[in-house]
Amino acid sequence: MKSFHDLAELTTEEITELLALANRLDKHPEPEALRGKVLSLLFLSPSLRTLTSFQAAMTRLGGGSFVVSPEMSIHGLETRPGIVMDGAAAEHIREAVPVIASYGDAIGIRAFAQRSDLEHDVADQEFAELVDLVDKPWINMESAMQHPCQNLADWKTLDDYDVPANGGKFVLSWAYHPKALPLAVPSSTLYTAARRGMDVTVLRPEGFELPESVMQKASAAAEAAGGSVKESDDRVEAMEGAHIIYAKSWSSTKHYGDKIKDKEARDELVDWCVDEPWFDNARQDCRFMHCLPVRRGVVVAENILDGPRSIVIHEARNRMLAQMAVLHRMMGAS
Amino acid sequence: MKSFHDLAELTTEEITELLALANRLDKHPEPEALRGKVLSLLFLSPSLRTLTSFQAAMTRLGGGSFVVSPEMSIHGLETRPGIVMDGAAAEHIREAVPVIASYGDAIGIRAFAQRSDLEHDVADQEFAELVDLVDKPWINMESAMQHPCQNLADWKTLDDYDVPANGGKFVLSWAYHPKALPLAVPSSTLYTAARRGMDVTVLRPEGFELPESVMQKASAAAEAAGGSVKESDDRVEAMEGAHIIYAKSWSSTKHYGDKIKDKEARDELVDWCVDEPWFDNARQDCRFMHCLPVRRGVVVAENILDGPRSIVIHEARNRMLAQMAVLHRMMGAS
Amino acid sequence: MKSFHDLAELTTEEITELLALANRLDKHPEPEALRGKVLSLLFLSPSLRTLTSFQAAMTRLGGGSFVVSPEMSIHGLETRPGIVMDGAAAEHIREAVPVIASYGDAIGIRAFAQRSDLEHDVADQEFAELVDLVDKPWINMESAMQHPCQNLADWKTLDDYDVPANGGKFVLSWAYHPKALPLAVPSSTLYTAARRGMDVTVLRPEGFELPESVMQKASAAAEAAGGSVKESDDRVEAMEGAHIIYAKSWSSTKHYGDKIKDKEARDELVDWCVDEPWFDNARQDCRFMHCLPVRRGVVVAENILDGPRSIVIHEARNRMLAQMAVLHRMMGAS
Repeated sequence: MKSFHDLAELTTEEITELLALANRLDKHPEPEALRGKVLSLLFLSPSLRTLTSFQAAMTRLGGGSFVVSPEMSIHGLETRPGIVMDGAAAEHIREAVPVIASYGDAIGIRAFAQRSDLEHDVADQEFAELVDLVDKPWINMESAMQHPCQNLADWKTLDDYDVPANGGKFVLSWAYHPKALPLAVPSSTLYTAARRGMDVTVLRPEGFELPESVMQKASAAAEAAGGSVKESDDRVEAMEGAHIIYAKSWSSTKHYGDKIKDKEARDELVDWCVDEPWFDNARQDCRFMHCLPVRRGVVVAENILDGPRSIVIHEARNRMLAQMAVLHRMMGAS
Repeated sequence: MKSFHDLAELTTEEITELLALANRLDKHPEPEALRGKVLSLLFLSPSLRTLTSFQAAMTRLGGGSFVVSPEMSIHGLETRPGIVMDGAAAEHIREAVPVIASYGDAIGIRAFAQRSDLEHDVADQEFAELVDLVDKPWINMESAMQHPCQNLADWKTLDDYDVPANGGKFVLSWAYHPKALPLAVPSSTLYTAARRGMDVTVLRPEGFELPESVMQKASAAAEAAGGSVKESDDRVEAMEGAHIIYAKSWSSTKHYGDKIKDKEARDELVDWCVDEPWFDNARQDCRFMHCLPVRRGVVVAENILDGPRSIVIHEARNRMLAQMAVLHRMMGAS
Repeated sequence: MKSFHDLAELTTEEITELLALANRLDKHPEPEALRGKVLSLLFLSPSLRTLTSFQAAMTRLGGGSFVVSPEMSIHGLETRPGIVMDGAAAEHIREAVPVIASYGDAIGIRAFAQRSDLEHDVADQEFAELVDLVDKPWINMESAMQHPCQNLADWKTLDDYDVPANGGKFVLSWAYHPKALPLAVPSSTLYTAARRGMDVTVLRPEGFELPESVMQKASAAAEAAGGSVKESDDRVEAMEGAHIIYAKSWSSTKHYGDKIKDKEARDELVDWCVDEPWFDNARQDCRFMHCLPVRRGVVVAENILDGPRSIVIHEARNRMLAQMAVLHRMMGAS
């Protein structure tokens, strides 16, 4: 396994094997599997779960990791190509990335979208340029369009809660958030649920449609797996018979990169806060998922988040287990 | 061992066994004891010794740890209950704490007192609410009223220097400090010395009395252990025959939460800086202890801190050894 | 091995053995060598490579490390001797250093020069005072005048690329940089190349001569090893037949500590940016070295840094291997 970037690059058998390995490592720890192995962790964007779950995962497998992040006392990292570096930053990622990679047996990299140009972000070009600098196995820890560690953990969570693949109904719902957020989680979550063969509805207000290429990729995956993908802005219709509601906020795609119009569009939509009435015509045991962090009382009502529908802590713990499987496959003997 | 919060929750036999284990691990390392085990470390308040000694302790026992602290590049941690999170913080401790705990086999949490309301802080309620979110073994790394890792290390330090339990004289002395400081160390140190059966004097100026419930708890422990507890504002009387002076600054309890009056009260007391004349009628080998960090020339004179009376570095090293014993008991086979 | 501070303190046999050990550990990992051992890492100045390569090195040898650095949520570290600590800093290095050291089996310390007084910095006195506080084996991770980890890695890099010792021509060239930088790397690099027996030219503009004691120490080492040391401000003459150009900026020694005059002197020298014409009369396979971080388009042209002459990534990776050898010797059975 040379990279972990997009579930679309794995066969279904490979996904199934990773999930089985995650379960095995949870039940039967292997503290010798990655003895003396090092994972380099480069965060160009903030993190809590990814940061801590990767460190914990490496320790559990007998290895270790180190973290480089922007708030550390380093000399400033320049990312622009071809620049004359006479400003504040004393180091360019063209050195920093290969050097950091050279100290590890694999590297994880996080770099969020710039969110100024939609086409640019959908192409996920910056991340491709970063991993081009690496000659070790690498893991996407969230780029402009991908968050495969979250996706694999979510797939495992659906399995853990016996949510059916074919016939399971998955609602990916936009939610209000005071800030414009990236497309990586909604886009790759949509693909994941479709790829699992579920009937997926993207519930979102007008102006917040996911990019056409994202919808098409998911539809093709659903079709191949016996599922379906549709879009709706009608909450009642969308939630009909749902097994899962997966809430996530994202930027307006209509006003992408236009901070003022994006905010105006969002400010009309503060009622997109998942609350008990949303579940009126869902399955009685419909569950609430979210990748975290989540804003209480803004994205979801407190009683949902603290109640029996919420499986967000189980979902977050699965981040560690899913990553242990990937690391084991990438650096271990398996 | 499901939690480590307050020495009052341990039997004397349990304390003795922990100290014996600490000594054994110092002499006979066990780098396989916690192989592949993970300690989550959540610092909601600053730290140097606790932070580094826990990391070192886990490595020495063959496991590892990860750190979450407020200055990291995370999205801001909200602690207030029931709040609509439309401000700066993107994550609530109600998710962050269980998630972080789920990645470890045990968790350490530090959260200092808010120091606005005395009764509130003495109840140590915030910390109780934090650990309520955890379903793993947990360690108090200093709350509003407790600092059990410091207490256990101090007990070991007294043993290491052959300070008698019954008959040993322990002076806990207030000292000047430019800032108002929490009650956790003085309160739990008083209990520890009393619990060890020593004759303890709390030497403090008027207006800096420790809370009545703290004094009563210590007195009861002293009585049961064959020691005694008294208070004094008379330095000469208090130091008579002392084996140990343990210096620590703390807020005025009379003006608790009133920053201006607290500062006015402290500013009259700059002469409360431990210096050689303090030892005039103490035992000749009377030792100086402090939990660190300590302000030189303010809390204690430089010649004391650098001289043979000071055992603060030995005391600080015992933090690691005491914590190794707790971790071994909590996560290991012992 | 009780300390690692200056290659001048090692015999040539010891250096050769360390390099052989570095190569052996690269080919044959020893993840049990430092099982349960702890390296304390204290950074009083910024770091990327040193920080991450030491952490990776300890993991590869089966131990672990912890980091203390100025941007962490600690209470501020006072370094001035004899001060009354009634200001912002709550902890003095006279406690912090021995405490941190007491948690490890060895300690690495970094503290850059103050760059106000040349004689003072050349004496490297602050660093000597820091390590005086330590009673464990210690490693200089860069002081005012030394950077032995870089030096050992550079020696290995020269070996890896089959650059001849006697007869090899090494040009240490000053380069333009917008900031005044310390003397540690150029001074200790000069010594290293001379000690290896090479013919070394220090290529620098007037006003940027290295201190006389530095030149003399290098000359004596060169003489003993069959090499030579000279100075030049003539690029064409200096580069004649060179195997290696090692670029590095440093403060004006003529205007040392005078920020305005130093800047004026440097601003005249923006053409000291290593570019292809510099190599006109060098050996065809002349290589470019730099300790990193390096400013692209300022210290060196982008086409050199990205082209086949540059061996800076290999050189940076050797940091980890060289340090593994030192740690193995210092804390292990070897």
